[in-house]
Amino acid sequence: MKILVSNAGSSSLKYQLINMDDGQVIAKGVCGRIGIGGEISHKTFDGRKFESDCDFPTHTEAFQKVVELLISKEYGVIQSMDEISAVGHRVVQGAEYFSESVLITPEVIDVIRKVSDLAPLHNPAHILAIQACEKVLDPSTPQVAVFDTAFHQTMPPKAFLYGVPYEYYEKYNIRKYGFHGTSHRFVSNRLAALLGKDIKDLKIITCHLGNGSSITAIDGGKSVDTTMGFTPLDGLLMGTRSGAVDPSVVTYIMEKENLTPAQMSDLLNKKSGYLGVSGVSSDDRDLKAAAEEGNKRAQITREIQSYQIKKYIGSYAAAMGGVDAIVFTGGIGEHNAELRYNVCSDMEFMGIAIDAAKNEEMNAKEAKVSAENSKVQVWVIPTNEELLIAQDTEKIVNGLNK
Amino acid sequence: MKILVSNAGSSSLKYQLINMDDGQVIAKGVCGRIGIGGEISHKTFDGRKFESDCDFPTHTEAFQKVVELLISKEYGVIQSMDEISAVGHRVVQGAEYFSESVLITPEVIDVIRKVSDLAPLHNPAHILAIQACEKVLDPSTPQVAVFDTAFHQTMPPKAFLYGVPYEYYEKYNIRKYGFHGTSHRFVSNRLAALLGKDIKDLKIITCHLGNGSSITAIDGGKSVDTTMGFTPLDGLLMGTRSGAVDPSVVTYIMEKENLTPAQMSDLLNKKSGYLGVSGVSSDDRDLKAAAEEGNKRAQITREIQSYQIKKYIGSYAAAMGGVDAIVFTGGIGEHNAELRYNVCSDMEFMGIAIDAAKNEEMNAKEAKVSAENSKVQVWVIPTNEELLIAQDTEKIVNGLNK
Repeated sequence: MKILVSNAGSSSLKYQLINMDDGQVIAKGVCGRIGIGGEISHKTFDGRKFESDCDFPTHTEAFQKVVELLISKEYGVIQSMDEISAVGHRVVQGAEYFSESVLITPEVIDVIRKVSDLAPLHNPAHILAIQACEKVLDPSTPQVAVFDTAFHQTMPPKAFLYGVPYEYYEKYNIRKYGFHGTSHRFVSNRLAALLGKDIKDLKIITCHLGNGSSITAIDGGKSVDTTMGFTPLDGLLMGTRSGAVDPSVVTYIMEKENLTPAQMSDLLNKKSGYLGVSGVSSDDRDLKAAAEEGNKRAQITREIQSYQIKKYIGSYAAAMGGVDAIVFTGGIGEHNAELRYNVCSDMEFMGIAIDAAKNEEMNAKEAKVSAENSKVQVWVIPTNEELLIAQDTEKIVNGLNK
Repeated sequence: MKILVSNAGSSSLKYQLINMDDGQVIAKGVCGRIGIGGEISHKTFDGRKFESDCDFPTHTEAFQKVVELLISKEYGVIQSMDEISAVGHRVVQGAEYFSESVLITPEVIDVIRKVSDLAPLHNPAHILAIQACEKVLDPSTPQVAVFDTAFHQTMPPKAFLYGVPYEYYEKYNIRKYGFHGTSHRFVSNRLAALLGKDIKDLKIITCHLGNGSSITAIDGGKSVDTTMGFTPLDGLLMGTRSGAVDPSVVTYIMEKENLTPAQMSDLLNKKSGYLGVSGVSSDDRDLKAAAEEGNKRAQITREIQSYQIKKYIGSYAAAMGGVDAIVFTGGIGEHNAELRYNVCSDMEFMGIAIDAAKNEEMNAKEAKVSAENSKVQVWVIPTNEELLIAQDTEKIVNGLNK
């Protein structure tokens, strides 16, 4: 079975075609500038590449081009589009309606639309992608929605409610949803497999650190708390996102700078974080270079970064009454050995001892980086959200065929 | 030596006259409705009480009344106002200018005024109180300012900087200041004395839990992190304050409800917290009663309360690389045994074991409530900010006389 995974933004579309027999990505690519021009970059498992400007007025034309390439002689990997058994869509926000992946029906689309207000940049784009697939593929091709928020629906109220008047939870659905759920779920399940243990018996803290970053406390396979909140702004300092700040800071800056809520939101989402504090860059690698060259603000930014992660690990261990393993994943989590070292050092009081040498040499590969005598295991596990989306999709499609 | 301690708000004035020979409060009281009428409630160490409506157009008339009572035949405790050796003022916000208590000079008043913008309800009132004392008492009476923020000035940048653009730190002094510093300092020093140890050798987490609540990580006697931030809104869920929320929640509610920054600030400070979430009350005792009667939202509010404290304890232990002792203080911290139990249970992974029976029977008295085999000691220590203000004042006055 071959499954197409779709990750659509308002003007972009990332895709992967995955062969479920061996989990191999047989083709992948990204369509960009949808609605404002168009471009595509496409690669096959055996190294064939296609890049071109295109005319993509909507997501439909983009999908048309993707399918055309997938079945083309020169850049194709399948004979006909009938070989695409199903499509799995990443959907950012499922709110309290979805606690697992679902087969897409008109009713599901209605709900995704209904909660668009909570993810105005993402959910409408996901709907466009779903509708484009309906038009471009055989309409009987099953489509599945895999939500970033679903995994976190197991959080208890003490973790998901905010301290604002309860009526805003009832009226506007204001609560912590959490994001990156697919990634946290993937790496925690992978860890359990690597340890040869039932995930039900494990307390795991997963650190997904990339351009967006979040940490999740996973007790017995269930998310019990996570750092991202109502939106992906909360929690850790990120590339351009502020993470948690005193709510008074928000109203104070708005007052002083005479900003509207939308302008303030923009400031917190796009001009803050590593970029705002360091003044250098939103990219962790640039930050590292600047810090090594002696840039004070870049150095402090890196200190904040590891300090906050360290504190959340302590916090989530307390939330679960202990922790068996910590997983680092995501672009930064997989590649920044120094960060992992700083986060895990001086944590012996809670049973964490990192192996400095192992940690240093491990880079974006599955590996245990804790010391042999460490009570808490520390792992690097590259994430693979697309594979999990494809696996969820396969499971649902197999259920249909029974 | 007798020292008058002043804690002034915009329309109130709390005072204590303390005999420094034995630390006894020989008279105390509160003036209310200053500027909008006036009332006083006054008590002496031997149980004499005076209560009356008064005419208090300004803090000066209030101080006049206080002095009049202190030297009066019927309600007095001293012969003449010359016996008041000095006045110690609580000052909420000293920003980055004051890392310890100081003798008040015209320059100091200027700085307190300069940072009023960061504590608009408090600092102007403190200045009024200082000026009232100058008028009412012998002008040569030394006055000392003791800042809520001073103790936290030892926090490193990684703890005090927010993730917003750095220019706002430079331009508007936006950073974490922390509050309740006098209380955290008092109970941590008291703990070291009770343990017979040098505070330099201790890692302590102090939980000041009252109508306003904050937790501080104190390493070697120095505050290294604290939950209140730029203002006393940040951190824990409090009586009417939200504590930390996703910054997006602030802009989202403002947008939906069409609120100004001032209105939103009011909502977060006065209508949120225990009150907002439970819909019952801002008072911990009311919450307890409602929860016991089966009120679901009151129950959840209490769960949030202990869950957040537990998480910060884990977080600050991680920040310090361990913890030797935890102190509970403040109205809730001293009286709510159930809360202390919930916070400290299931924390064996980091060496915390509470003694349920000892904890249950201890109420607002100095006592160790951890189990004998607990690696981390847990204590209840009633706070006494006024005594510390008086002690700081005495020290500075003694320095002057050398």
